[in-house]
Amino acid sequence: MRKKSTKNKAIPHLSCTAEAFVMIHEADPLGIVWHGNYLKYFELGRETFGRTFGIQYNEILEAGFTTPIVQLHCNYKQALKYGEKFSVKTTMLYCQGAKIILDYQIFNTKNELCCEAETTQVFINLQSELMLIAPSFYEEWKRKHNFDLE
Amino acid sequence: MRKKSTKNKAIPHLSCTAEAFVMIHEADPLGIVWHGNYLKYFELGRETFGRTFGIQYNEILEAGFTTPIVQLHCNYKQALKYGEKFSVKTTMLYCQGAKIILDYQIFNTKNELCCEAETTQVFINLQSELMLIAPSFYEEWKRKHNFDLE
Amino acid sequence: MRKKSTKNKAIPHLSCTAEAFVMIHEADPLGIVWHGNYLKYFELGRETFGRTFGIQYNEILEAGFTTPIVQLHCNYKQALKYGEKFSVKTTMLYCQGAKIILDYQIFNTKNELCCEAETTQVFINLQSELMLIAPSFYEEWKRKHNFDLE
Amino acid sequence: MRKKSTKNKAIPHLSCTAEAFVMIHEADPLGIVWHGNYLKYFELGRETFGRTFGIQYNEILEAGFTTPIVQLHCNYKQALKYGEKFSVKTTMLYCQGAKIILDYQIFNTKNELCCEAETTQVFINLQSELMLIAPSFYEEWKRKHNFDLE
Repeated sequence: MRKKSTKNKAIPHLSCTAEAFVMIHEADPLGIVWHGNYLKYFELGRETFGRTFGIQYNEILEAGFTTPIVQLHCNYKQALKYGEKFSVKTTMLYCQGAKIILDYQIFNTKNELCCEAETTQVFINLQSELMLIAPSFYEEWKRKHNFDLE
Repeated sequence: MRKKSTKNKAIPHLSCTAEAFVMIHEADPLGIVWHGNYLKYFELGRETFGRTFGIQYNEILEAGFTTPIVQLHCNYKQALKYGEKFSVKTTMLYCQGAKIILDYQIFNTKNELCCEAETTQVFINLQSELMLIAPSFYEEWKRKHNFDLE
Repeated sequence: MRKKSTKNKAIPHLSCTAEAFVMIHEADPLGIVWHGNYLKYFELGRETFGRTFGIQYNEILEAGFTTPIVQLHCNYKQALKYGEKFSVKTTMLYCQGAKIILDYQIFNTKNELCCEAETTQVFINLQSELMLIAPSFYEEWKRKHNFDLE
Repeated sequence: MRKKSTKNKAIPHLSCTAEAFVMIHEADPLGIVWHGNYLKYFELGRETFGRTFGIQYNEILEAGFTTPIVQLHCNYKQALKYGEKFSVKTTMLYCQGAKIILDYQIFNTKNELCCEAETTQVFINLQSELMLIAPSFYEEWKRKHNFDLE
């Protein structure tokens, strides 16, 4: 089991923030968000990232690929409660090769870090083959968004 | 962000298996389980572990504690599809101190490993304080279940 | 808004029962199942019905149809709590025409009725057209299962 | 099984609208929202109603009551797809007695009605007793919001 995270550098300009509040069905009998529901908040972050930077699932699919998550690390620091507002900051991490690595930070209204996570996605073509080098549409996307500039 | 997993040893006799199948609302537009839904399968594993070995949330709560998950690592290897049967094998990992570390392995009917994960839980008392040493009820549970025997 | 239910007769031999228990992420801050999660239990009932009587989504799809739910009525009578075991009894209701009507009853371990519901499904072909008469595969299925016998 | 809806009149000024988009984990293998997930959208509507008009779950709880849903009717008209934006219009219906009846309408961006529903909630006090007459805090809320004015 590969368990280490990437420790890769964040790309500050490839970052965006979404806001939401905790719904009653996301909170458990202790009144706090069930740990698995944070993955919906990361999904909100990833979706917002895709909408902001033109790299949604549908756009990737049109280019002929899917990008399944192959690895997830998550640290829970402070529980969000039913009704609480929060923000999800999603930032792309620098990496070489045919992968997308995103970092997520969830903050409450006091700006306290409640949860942070990292996901790694790979590229699969329509024949279900793993891409060993990044697809050209993604290389183009990276150039357009100054992925390599620091 | 602490991202390394524990690499702790499994305790073979503290292990159990649950079985289920993929429901339609757990599969995404690609027909495969949305990655976040595996956490429900791990929850099924953890719940089954608690029922099997007498350490369910309710029993922990009666002893005066909650055991929130503070860390999760997950590797996705092969997607489960709608309708597919699978098993979740949940195994306790050996660790010293006031923590519960569980390992999860999800297998399809061909006995292929589809997903594996590890969660770390801590003990919080009813005053919301983190326990630095394991509560006595848990030490007793460990003795009863030969936690330290190899 | 069409709101009346069918009041159709149950077909006693087209009935099956599934069992499960309430997971922690299905219970809300009051410790009881969030009302929307009962629809997952009805889905379990419908899936079990499909497996038992050979009319699963995949089998319907192979015949060239989908069967979306167009109407749902649900009465909540008694809340299930986290950890509680329950059963879902799913029964087909008699109806003429191109529809599938199922009735669901959820019982706790004291055999008290906790929740009952009814869903109506229609047949849509692969050109997204609503079928006004039942597809032949379904007529065949009804004959095989003595749908019309009382 | 009581299945008829109330056919009660809408109170036009007790109405509000929330907006969201369909997340990937809410869509099923057909690419459309799983029917049970619309209840999360109604919950979003109800929560927004509570925040707009000062009658959230927490406020009701502080007054000494919970308001469980005892009945739900839902008509599905047109499926929302992954990524689609939609709005939920939530409107209170006029009724006498100790009940809250809400009506929900979900519209896509073409302003087509995709789904409509109605929920009935009752008042339960902290001794788990059903209120046969509306609690005074709710009567006050109704006066403040001109519930009876037409």
